[in-house]
Amino acid sequence: MREINVENLADMARGAAILGTGGGGDPYVGLLLAEQAIRRHGPVTLLSADEVSDDATVVPSAFMGAPTVMLEKLPTGNEMVTSLRAIESVIGRRATHTVSLEAGGLNSMIPIVTAAELGIPLIDADGMGRAYPELQMLIPTLGGITASPMALADERGNAVAFNTIDNAWAERLARSVVTDMGCSGGMSLYVLTGRQLKDLMVHDTLTLCEEIGHAVRLARESHEDPVLAAVSVTGGRQLFQGKITDVERNTVGGFARGLARLDGVGGDVGATLEIDFQNENLVARRGGEVLASVPDLISVLDTESGEAVTTEKLRYGLRVSVIASPCDPRWRSPEGLELAGPAYFGYAHEYQPV
Amino acid sequence: MREINVENLADMARGAAILGTGGGGDPYVGLLLAEQAIRRHGPVTLLSADEVSDDATVVPSAFMGAPTVMLEKLPTGNEMVTSLRAIESVIGRRATHTVSLEAGGLNSMIPIVTAAELGIPLIDADGMGRAYPELQMLIPTLGGITASPMALADERGNAVAFNTIDNAWAERLARSVVTDMGCSGGMSLYVLTGRQLKDLMVHDTLTLCEEIGHAVRLARESHEDPVLAAVSVTGGRQLFQGKITDVERNTVGGFARGLARLDGVGGDVGATLEIDFQNENLVARRGGEVLASVPDLISVLDTESGEAVTTEKLRYGLRVSVIASPCDPRWRSPEGLELAGPAYFGYAHEYQPV
Repeated sequence: MREINVENLADMARGAAILGTGGGGDPYVGLLLAEQAIRRHGPVTLLSADEVSDDATVVPSAFMGAPTVMLEKLPTGNEMVTSLRAIESVIGRRATHTVSLEAGGLNSMIPIVTAAELGIPLIDADGMGRAYPELQMLIPTLGGITASPMALADERGNAVAFNTIDNAWAERLARSVVTDMGCSGGMSLYVLTGRQLKDLMVHDTLTLCEEIGHAVRLARESHEDPVLAAVSVTGGRQLFQGKITDVERNTVGGFARGLARLDGVGGDVGATLEIDFQNENLVARRGGEVLASVPDLISVLDTESGEAVTTEKLRYGLRVSVIASPCDPRWRSPEGLELAGPAYFGYAHEYQPV
Repeated sequence: MREINVENLADMARGAAILGTGGGGDPYVGLLLAEQAIRRHGPVTLLSADEVSDDATVVPSAFMGAPTVMLEKLPTGNEMVTSLRAIESVIGRRATHTVSLEAGGLNSMIPIVTAAELGIPLIDADGMGRAYPELQMLIPTLGGITASPMALADERGNAVAFNTIDNAWAERLARSVVTDMGCSGGMSLYVLTGRQLKDLMVHDTLTLCEEIGHAVRLARESHEDPVLAAVSVTGGRQLFQGKITDVERNTVGGFARGLARLDGVGGDVGATLEIDFQNENLVARRGGEVLASVPDLISVLDTESGEAVTTEKLRYGLRVSVIASPCDPRWRSPEGLELAGPAYFGYAHEYQPV
């Protein structure tokens, strides 16, 4: 058990954005919101998964919305409180804890806001150890936990609770409602017991985020390579260093799909890297060769600062370094690969672990 | 207290469709569903409003959907059960009774299905004494009751509960969800106590429906005028007898808006009547003169059979009689007229009671 104070937040948001692999929301927005909530309500209690009792009622907290809208319409915090209260009324129990479902600049910070607003402890864990574009892509799904009952709320006070026959219906109905709500809302979903949380979530994610963010910041302050500092903590490696020469984007079915092309610099001069993304980075190819792919984490960092570049901020001329980091081992199981491996996203290549 | 048996249903559905003023759903579908439910589960207990205890939890039951879809995709009954269970979990109480929100061929019958499926008593009342196209157009609205908390469910088992800041948001979010569900769903909304029901709903609507339907049938069987038989029970009058010469339809914002033109026959030879509708019939004009308008009930009946013709079934060549019947007196109050009088629907004319 420890406290999250305002001083912890910048490193956490920085590291979370790297684990967000291009998605998971903007870390600047996440940082602002968490700072504001802690300034208003005081520090948040952070528990490790082991410190949670088996019969705890853990209600994860997330933000749903188009990334481009989130940059213009900041969450207020009300959304998360309203959605959590709505799910409590459906399940007939009070939430004892909240937790993050995915790592990401915004979605790692949102549960800090929820915990601060409601005065409940936050658990140091998440459902993926990364970010993924679709609602069912969580390790708890592998353990039979469903998104529903699920609640979605807006900043005005409108709350909608979903009890659906499967995750596909949960995704579909919530997507329509969030569009009406102005393309963003707070969500409560994948309600877990403490026991399920221990068995089915990735432990210590926020601590890892903070360590990554801290290492990047220290390297930058001491004029060392922040990108190498990041991979030294994630256990990954640098794939490529280059300059973005082209970004193609298509908004398909509510997702930001696209492709970024990089020309190599330094040791990679003369080579070209392509990154496919669907909210998150999916595959990195050098020439025709796949260097890394889902479920492993592909993160694009600003070469100079080591800060993550989310897919919506990829643009011509940016000098970036691309890193790959190993995913949680459960993603490498046959079930994990079926849920969110290359084939699910339409790729023919065999997954090769980083 | 009395029982509704299969034998009561045809008269009820026939009369309900007349009070539905062109909307409220198809009486044939309503009849089929109610018959099926009573055959499966036995008769339904019908209580008059006075027999309900003040602290009863009354959960009205309705069907939401495009009329054209309802004709092709029959409700199964599951929708209403699933939505009622969903609202119970939100309000934290069991429904003791159900009731109709509007009179209409389908929406008067749907609560019979709900009552049969769940084994709870039905109350002989409704929220309008007619049908109206928008969610907030109920007498309970005049007493400060809101649609929300509200639940919507489909035949597959998906349930969505809404807790909205106003009726406009309830309408908007439910409309999106019902579209995803395949344009039809069961709803539970405007939850009332027994006391509120007594004060704010129209009493004895199903009995009135049955009396109207019975009178029409008897007149037909004894070769008397079924249209005059209907108005003798509703306390209204015949406005016009004619042949439909033209029907214009526009689907605007989810509503079936349009205009029907009639050339007079019999005593009305040489004259023309126009009826504007928005799901329900709104205004009847002869030449330029308004003969009747909302909130009074304008019903189009087949001249021969006395059966109601819903707005989606208006078509060239039909020989019809147009009748007007007085609305519940609360619709004639300044607040009632503001909620659902001519001005709300964009008309400039002063309301003249039938």
